Amino acid sequence: MKALMISAVVATAVMDASLIDEAKNAGLKPIPANKKAVEKLTSNPKNPTTAAKVELGKMLYFEPRLSKSGLVSCNTCHNLATGGVDGMAAAIGHKWKANPHHLSSPTVYNAVFYSQQFWDGRSPHLEDQAQGPMQAAPEMAAPKDHVANVVNSMPAYVNTFKKAYGNDVKITFEKIADTIAVFERTLITPSRYDDFLNGNKKALTAAEQKGLKTFIDKGCTTCHNDIALGGTMQAFGVTGQYKHMNVGDFKGDANGLVRVPTLRNVTETAPYFHNGQIATLSEAIKEMGRIQLGVDLSDKETAEIETFLKALEGKKPTIIYPMLPASTATTPKVDVIND
Amino acid sequence: MKALMISAVVATAVMDASLIDEAKNAGLKPIPANKKAVEKLTSNPKNPTTAAKVELGKMLYFEPRLSKSGLVSCNTCHNLATGGVDGMAAAIGHKWKANPHHLSSPTVYNAVFYSQQFWDGRSPHLEDQAQGPMQAAPEMAAPKDHVANVVNSMPAYVNTFKKAYGNDVKITFEKIADTIAVFERTLITPSRYDDFLNGNKKALTAAEQKGLKTFIDKGCTTCHNDIALGGTMQAFGVTGQYKHMNVGDFKGDANGLVRVPTLRNVTETAPYFHNGQIATLSEAIKEMGRIQLGVDLSDKETAEIETFLKALEGKKPTIIYPMLPASTATTPKVDVIND
Repeated sequence: MKALMISAVVATAVMDASLIDEAKNAGLKPIPANKKAVEKLTSNPKNPTTAAKVELGKMLYFEPRLSKSGLVSCNTCHNLATGGVDGMAAAIGHKWKANPHHLSSPTVYNAVFYSQQFWDGRSPHLEDQAQGPMQAAPEMAAPKDHVANVVNSMPAYVNTFKKAYGNDVKITFEKIADTIAVFERTLITPSRYDDFLNGNKKALTAAEQKGLKTFIDKGCTTCHNDIALGGTMQAFGVTGQYKHMNVGDFKGDANGLVRVPTLRNVTETAPYFHNGQIATLSEAIKEMGRIQLGVDLSDKETAEIETFLKALEGKKPTIIYPMLPASTATTPKVDVIND
Repeated sequence: MKALMISAVVATAVMDASLIDEAKNAGLKPIPANKKAVEKLTSNPKNPTTAAKVELGKMLYFEPRLSKSGLVSCNTCHNLATGGVDGMAAAIGHKWKANPHHLSSPTVYNAVFYSQQFWDGRSPHLEDQAQGPMQAAPEMAAPKDHVANVVNSMPAYVNTFKKAYGNDVKITFEKIADTIAVFERTLITPSRYDDFLNGNKKALTAAEQKGLKTFIDKGCTTCHNDIALGGTMQAFGVTGQYKHMNVGDFKGDANGLVRVPTLRNVTETAPYFHNGQIATLSEAIKEMGRIQLGVDLSDKETAEIETFLKALEGKKPTIIYPMLPASTATTPKVDVIND
């Protein structure tokens, strides 16, 4: 019995070592353990991350007055308390309008690792992405000059921009979006999975490692790879049609490709898929097997993969809730019901 | 010249000392400097404040899933980032409905010091008050059992309740409201004004002290007194009719009395009055003089009082944004557009 246990331990250790290699060969990459490496990876050279910009970006991320109504902030749909999403099948924004394409809000956590933003991948990075929802009629519904006027109307904001960018800063809509993006670039969630890929073989349990192996062996890493386990554009419905394709009119980009969502913190981002029609993770896994890989995953395989996916739940950054400046006489006013 | 300066300093010192007495005689009270005294003052003996309850109460305060839609939290209307209010003339809640009586959201900061809650004072304390907006159709619109079911559906919440109240805890709607109230009881904002009343004569500038004197001399402390500089029920429109009485149908309680709002952080809680029809603090001060005291305050007197009121801006507690548990298969689902 003792001999059996020892050989089992040895076998596990051997499996661990080769599993890390296998995962890397399949295109999976960890969030680096080294802080400097993370900073380099997440900072935009054209808009480098600084503490002052991050703090200001956080204020703007939580700022409802950037919206036309004064009620909707980035955090309304990408709520940092609930996995970076709103839990809605279709996002709800200005005047309680649902997204016209029945698209759900993707999580903002780890979005910095995506190579394309939005479900149709139309945006190359967060600086560009952040401009979209502020203006979109069913989201924050704010014209560019409204956003800039709101911020410029409050001296405390103007001073904070000066501290972040220098006294000559022009606070434009684009500068505001850039600053929000700098904050979003810090929203990464390292997990035990990263510890494992970074070499700590004990960071994942045997069951989680088994799940990772199944995840790789079944071919999930074809799309869910790199640091985000997602983030690139891929064909959708390769081997079968998505059960709920009839909900909403979304058909992907011009080539029918869809941005692959991250699997990090996927336990917190239900309901699943672009139109939020799948309630549970196990159903999502099976549907993916069917329509992307052409396999009917067994309950056992599905459970194995789910066990692995749960290990992708990461440590969220500590966010001190920002205190925002008071509106002034020049802060734009709107009729929230009629405008 | 030197002699003149010295005597001016002596005169100021004398004015300071007597002004503190004068303020106290007029019914003004500071937030105590002593931490234990504050805890005693803000804790409910029937529901004593503990760190575990405060942390849990904070989660629930920011929890949108307590609402019928899953989109509206306590913090939506009483936003801790913006002075504990939403900046709206009339609160906007479930399905973007405005408050049917055109009532604005009062600030939650320092509400613990009120002797009555709600504009009509119908609630004696925060534990009772917190039950109202969760159920109100134009606010969070959630039946009691929905609220309790949501919390009970998430093991992480159940465990946190057990930690806070013991293993036998029953997580009812009332217990949830009680816990939110415990968090709200910590939302106090000591200011330089408190330092002054607590004996530090230099804590307010000469201009702020002058403003405090005018505030007392004109009779503002008749209603705006005690720790909150407000919080009791008073007649509204004693010496004149409110300019905007025609907006909304609110007429106070059964006796026509209205709960006096706190003046702490009043620079952050525009627009003013129960129906949010007054945009600026100076206009609010003048209107109060006219309809409550029967005096036409001069621009100089108004500016003096405004200078004092600005000194009531307090230090907000540091709030780490809570990370909330993931929904489970049993968490109630709603059709956010149609339900």
